Amino acid sequence: MTVSELDGARVRHARLLARVEERLDRTLTGERDRWAAVDPRGGAPAAAIAALVGAGGKRLRPAFCVAGHLAAGGDPDDPVIADCAAALELIHAGALLHDDVFDDAETRRGRPSAHARHAAEHTARGWRGESRRYGESVAVLAGDLADILADRLTAALPVPARRVWNELLTEIVIGQHLDVAVAAESVVDPDLSQWIAICKSGRYSIQRPLQLGAAIAGRAELGPVFAAYGEALGEAFQLRDDLIDAFGDAEAAGKPVGLDLEQHKMTLLLALATRRDARVRELVGEPEWDLPALRARLREIAIGAEIEARIGSLTERAVAALHGGGLDPAWCEELTAMAHRVAYRER
Amino acid sequence: MTVSELDGARVRHARLLARVEERLDRTLTGERDRWAAVDPRGGAPAAAIAALVGAGGKRLRPAFCVAGHLAAGGDPDDPVIADCAAALELIHAGALLHDDVFDDAETRRGRPSAHARHAAEHTARGWRGESRRYGESVAVLAGDLADILADRLTAALPVPARRVWNELLTEIVIGQHLDVAVAAESVVDPDLSQWIAICKSGRYSIQRPLQLGAAIAGRAELGPVFAAYGEALGEAFQLRDDLIDAFGDAEAAGKPVGLDLEQHKMTLLLALATRRDARVRELVGEPEWDLPALRARLREIAIGAEIEARIGSLTERAVAALHGGGLDPAWCEELTAMAHRVAYRER
Repeated sequence: MTVSELDGARVRHARLLARVEERLDRTLTGERDRWAAVDPRGGAPAAAIAALVGAGGKRLRPAFCVAGHLAAGGDPDDPVIADCAAALELIHAGALLHDDVFDDAETRRGRPSAHARHAAEHTARGWRGESRRYGESVAVLAGDLADILADRLTAALPVPARRVWNELLTEIVIGQHLDVAVAAESVVDPDLSQWIAICKSGRYSIQRPLQLGAAIAGRAELGPVFAAYGEALGEAFQLRDDLIDAFGDAEAAGKPVGLDLEQHKMTLLLALATRRDARVRELVGEPEWDLPALRARLREIAIGAEIEARIGSLTERAVAALHGGGLDPAWCEELTAMAHRVAYRER
Repeated sequence: MTVSELDGARVRHARLLARVEERLDRTLTGERDRWAAVDPRGGAPAAAIAALVGAGGKRLRPAFCVAGHLAAGGDPDDPVIADCAAALELIHAGALLHDDVFDDAETRRGRPSAHARHAAEHTARGWRGESRRYGESVAVLAGDLADILADRLTAALPVPARRVWNELLTEIVIGQHLDVAVAAESVVDPDLSQWIAICKSGRYSIQRPLQLGAAIAGRAELGPVFAAYGEALGEAFQLRDDLIDAFGDAEAAGKPVGLDLEQHKMTLLLALATRRDARVRELVGEPEWDLPALRARLREIAIGAEIEARIGSLTERAVAALHGGGLDPAWCEELTAMAHRVAYRER
């Protein structure tokens, strides 16, 4: 493999991702304008999605979807791949819009969350009814619209890709539901929590997007290679998330930290600590958690270093899975670099 | 046309609708069991949908979808039509699950609504967090899952049908959003309210299901015939709904009545009254509505009789649209009977 081959892979990837951005922008602007023409209020759901998508985000899912497609030898000019990658970002936006309602999160990507912003507008204008219900209704409907726009963009998916697509959607919702249920019932079950974290975050961020890209390229047989890479890297991705929240710095992270413990969330990090330390087990078994004691104990048992080591070995395992899987060498290289960026990111 | 041809049409229709019920049942049971095997809590979203679907409902949308297909000469054994009709009922269930959250409706189909039931369970078991947020989260996720299962059942839709399908989904959400916005902002705009009612209810109940059925039969060119029939009958359907709520009897209706006025809802009925009577215009222009005065005035101007007349002429117009549209005579007859059942129903 020459340097120019690797550069070529990167250029194709970047070009396709630029087309994904255009597609996102065109879809959301078009939909906002279409309904705003009926009534100015009609543009609000699309505008709420656009505000969230425009506020940043890592575009992780489109990046892996496009990478899976190109690594499988897919045509970079196939419009289906750009549409599908854009659809993944819309599904992600929809999940965040709904999740922020379930968690009552006030901010998202450094700005007020959609439901908080619309509730505040309701209050400020003295509208009829309850501000909270209004804000949450607008956010839920915006999330619903995001899913519908994603459905529109995936209309031309070939059947094997559509199967992966539907599985991804189902996993997100079941994962979200179990998340809500486990938090409400104060379930301390590290195995279940690990299953939820992997189902809800890991799979839909990396494995399923890669498999979708490959299926669009007509190479659904790459599914197992991407499953092995994606499962390991998905867990590393989630562990990094947990580490940032547990020990990170809000400014570097670009979001509030320490929320998981405050919300009694059995993260992968905490599940690991719970399995290995009797004192942590005792602390998380209490109906109300003693946060300072729990934080101190997590530092004492050096859980951070243990998680770092686990991230290291998961990333190695992910990279190892790429070799011998029938991918071209430039793409093995590129997916290796992507693995390191995901596992060792700061936010 | 002989009696046996008409009977044949009815028998095929009834058989297909029986297959739709099987499909609904199989999909929901399968999904519940699949996730309950991971954890008993995982079955809850599918169970919430099944409870709603099993509690009754008119199955209006599947009936029109199947009728559109058969009237267009579609194959009654085509699995795509049974799946699509079942998917429409799931979309309807999803919309009701979300709508009940937006409206804070305590009951649905004579039973506690999903969010109310889950909030009550949360309270009874003394779970962590806020009962309302928990109940609403479960209901929103169940609605999301209903949409995803519908997506799965429509995976094999031909492209023209998929276009109708996505349009139907979009119209529901935009209609719901405008409904929420208009109520919050106390907008008195009969034209806008009429647009919302037709977009949210009329089109997705009759016109779009018929067009979907025809598109699955490969006869998308019947779209305009079904648009003419569906638009007129959709408005008649909605006007009947308004009449039942405004002047009906809760027992006969099988649901609470009088809610539209209480919630300051600008229904089609009220939009008509507002356009034609200065005193009604004055009353609905107030920030708080004087309900006894408004009810009295609506009776005084005999709005009920006017709406009945309008339902009559809309139904005639719908039926007239069927003739000369290239449908077979037995199906013109059957769609005529369906129009009368919809326009003159008691609940």
